[in-house]
Amino acid sequence: MRAVCVIGLGLIGGSVLRAASGAGRPAWGATASEADAAAARDDGFEVLETDTALRRAKQEDALVVVAVPLTALREVLRKIAEIHPGAWLTDVVSVKDPVDFEVRKLVPNARYAGGHPMAGTSASGFAAGSAELFRGAAWAVTIEEATTIDAWREAAQLALDCGAHVVPTGAAAHDDSVARISHLPHLFAAILATVGADGGPLALSLAAGSFRDGTRVAGSNPELVRAMTEGNKAALLDAVDDALGRLGATRGSLASTGGLKSTLDSGHEARKRLDALATGEGTTTSTVRLRPEALSRLRDLGELGGRVTAIEEDQATTQVPVG
Amino acid sequence: MRAVCVIGLGLIGGSVLRAASGAGRPAWGATASEADAAAARDDGFEVLETDTALRRAKQEDALVVVAVPLTALREVLRKIAEIHPGAWLTDVVSVKDPVDFEVRKLVPNARYAGGHPMAGTSASGFAAGSAELFRGAAWAVTIEEATTIDAWREAAQLALDCGAHVVPTGAAAHDDSVARISHLPHLFAAILATVGADGGPLALSLAAGSFRDGTRVAGSNPELVRAMTEGNKAALLDAVDDALGRLGATRGSLASTGGLKSTLDSGHEARKRLDALATGEGTTTSTVRLRPEALSRLRDLGELGGRVTAIEEDQATTQVPVG
Repeated sequence: MRAVCVIGLGLIGGSVLRAASGAGRPAWGATASEADAAAARDDGFEVLETDTALRRAKQEDALVVVAVPLTALREVLRKIAEIHPGAWLTDVVSVKDPVDFEVRKLVPNARYAGGHPMAGTSASGFAAGSAELFRGAAWAVTIEEATTIDAWREAAQLALDCGAHVVPTGAAAHDDSVARISHLPHLFAAILATVGADGGPLALSLAAGSFRDGTRVAGSNPELVRAMTEGNKAALLDAVDDALGRLGATRGSLASTGGLKSTLDSGHEARKRLDALATGEGTTTSTVRLRPEALSRLRDLGELGGRVTAIEEDQATTQVPVG
Repeated sequence: MRAVCVIGLGLIGGSVLRAASGAGRPAWGATASEADAAAARDDGFEVLETDTALRRAKQEDALVVVAVPLTALREVLRKIAEIHPGAWLTDVVSVKDPVDFEVRKLVPNARYAGGHPMAGTSASGFAAGSAELFRGAAWAVTIEEATTIDAWREAAQLALDCGAHVVPTGAAAHDDSVARISHLPHLFAAILATVGADGGPLALSLAAGSFRDGTRVAGSNPELVRAMTEGNKAALLDAVDDALGRLGATRGSLASTGGLKSTLDSGHEARKRLDALATGEGTTTSTVRLRPEALSRLRDLGELGGRVTAIEEDQATTQVPVG
């Protein structure tokens, strides 16, 4: 099993370190945070200086996982370009197009496929993580022009070893998707919380499940949410415009006929589709040989809502919704 | 302990019947639904014809609890006016101003205070309910011009017996509040689910906690949500306009400077206020003597985010946030 070198040991990076190590892979980390370094060492993990960690990655031909915020990405990529420019490389940053762009520019010889585990908590830092964080979660692994099947497979294998399933996707399609299902939900939660609190203490004291669930992620560290959402501006604007249009139409309908049927039925239908996907209801299982020409097929499969659930030898097991 | 007669045995009415009975109060019910009647009888409860149930309420001087949808309210109130016009009366309908209006018009001699337990599930019907549904929940009990302290106390005592705490409130203030913390969250969940699904299967397959939580109540029966939200049109329009204004401002900020700090910070601050309220952090406990002149004090206390947690003899124990 290929060794894993994790740069950045916050919630996600720290959880990758634990999960990869738990899967039996040699693993070590590096972090600029003294608190995260101390917490990781307390848990028995090897934490090195970034330079030392990358030199060791070169010696052991390890997979390097970049787990720093988007704002610290360039600095880390420059270090990799200097110490180990041909590294097996992936990342866990929440946008993929900007990361792909920087990697191709700064470390063009890296054997890179981007990654994004769709898991988290409202807490942050190494101490908040766990080896189980990715269990059952989706983990996007990107396929672009320059992606090789070997680099994709390394990133996908890490996701599977961490207990996730892999969603193959283009970087831009990923960013459009997460604008709708992750970044817009954070904006909605913030706005809902504010409109509720504007109703005064009486309103908050009457708040129950619908408000608590709808505002839960407003409890997350707003600086981290800001970095994530502002880093996906163009795609998020599209999603916000869709939401504004729909909320405006709902307003018009309520003000005129008083009817909310269309809004509520459409939301109910959409939520049922999500639930069906979560149960794996109506999917077919098949295998894909991991040859270079498989990449475009894998990406198409991701577009259809499909996933890779296992990789053995040179075969990937896939599940794709029927119809 | 005063007996309880519940008219309507769906999720909420059925749970009131169970909880009141569990608290040791004589309790019986009536319902137009054969399925709910059968389910309640299977659980060992007495289910009568509505007329018979009301006649018995008169004989035993019971508290009558109206637990039918807003659309069936008038018919039930007319029956009460005919059979037991001076009843102790409360209800559990999700809007309060329209119910108060109908009660004063159709059963002016009823000893009435409106109620609204802030609890539910996405399922409906007697079988979905439980005696524990209201445990730890807020339960609004209304105070209007015509409300007497005795009628208010009867409705509040039922809420406490069901395991809830009581939030004293004017009917219109209640309706404004639930527009923000219950009805708007249902519209947001529906719109978020639709915008997510508009991203196609890839988007839904990447959806994780933030999207699942933000869309959870879109899984509720849309007909019931529709009755609830459309029944609170004026207050909901205000809440939707606030939300539209804030989403529009967020859009403008994202499109121009790219900044989301103000939106996210304000949401985070609001959510922290909700969490502080939930833990009961920073509240003072005191008692209020339940005399007629206490009603306006109780209503003020509700405006400040306060609650009644117990009634003994003629004293109510209250908790009010400090400052």
